Amino acid sequence: MTWSAEVIVSLKPVVNDPQGLVVRDGLRQLGFDGVRAARVGKHIVLEVDAEDEHSARELVSRMCETLLRNPVIEDHRISSLRRLEDG
Amino acid sequence: MTWSAEVIVSLKPVVNDPQGLVVRDGLRQLGFDGVRAARVGKHIVLEVDAEDEHSARELVSRMCETLLRNPVIEDHRISSLRRLEDG
Repeated sequence: MTWSAEVIVSLKPVVNDPQGLVVRDGLRQLGFDGVRAARVGKHIVLEVDAEDEHSARELVSRMCETLLRNPVIEDHRISSLRRLEDG
Repeated sequence: MTWSAEVIVSLKPVVNDPQGLVVRDGLRQLGFDGVRAARVGKHIVLEVDAEDEHSARELVSRMCETLLRNPVIEDHRISSLRRLEDG
């Protein structure tokens, strides 16, 4: 079976986010005064082969821990996991 | 009121994603043979002031269209919108 997983990799709350500050200030300069904060992370969509939902989730978690996130400064979560029709 | 919005900015399906190919190939080189595809986008968390949920959503959409996405190659969606307690 093939699964589609959406993973969010975001900076930990205590870590400075210069990219987010640029986004916030850019929005303010464009007249969006109501923006208080912005933080920028990664959204990764993976298609993986796995026997069942549990295995797919476990596989994607290992991928995150091995390559996709930097555990010193980043958190990750699987925001969605669904089976693909063609899988 | 203050609102927290999560925005996903992703490349349109027809657009090549070299970063995603690097992620896919990197995972395969690490032994994750079951990975078929990977695509990389942005996950942006915004805190904005707005009168109500409808205004907040409309404001964040305008921010996306003005600054956060490149309409030629990227799509965006608001994946979550919630009121913050201190708002």
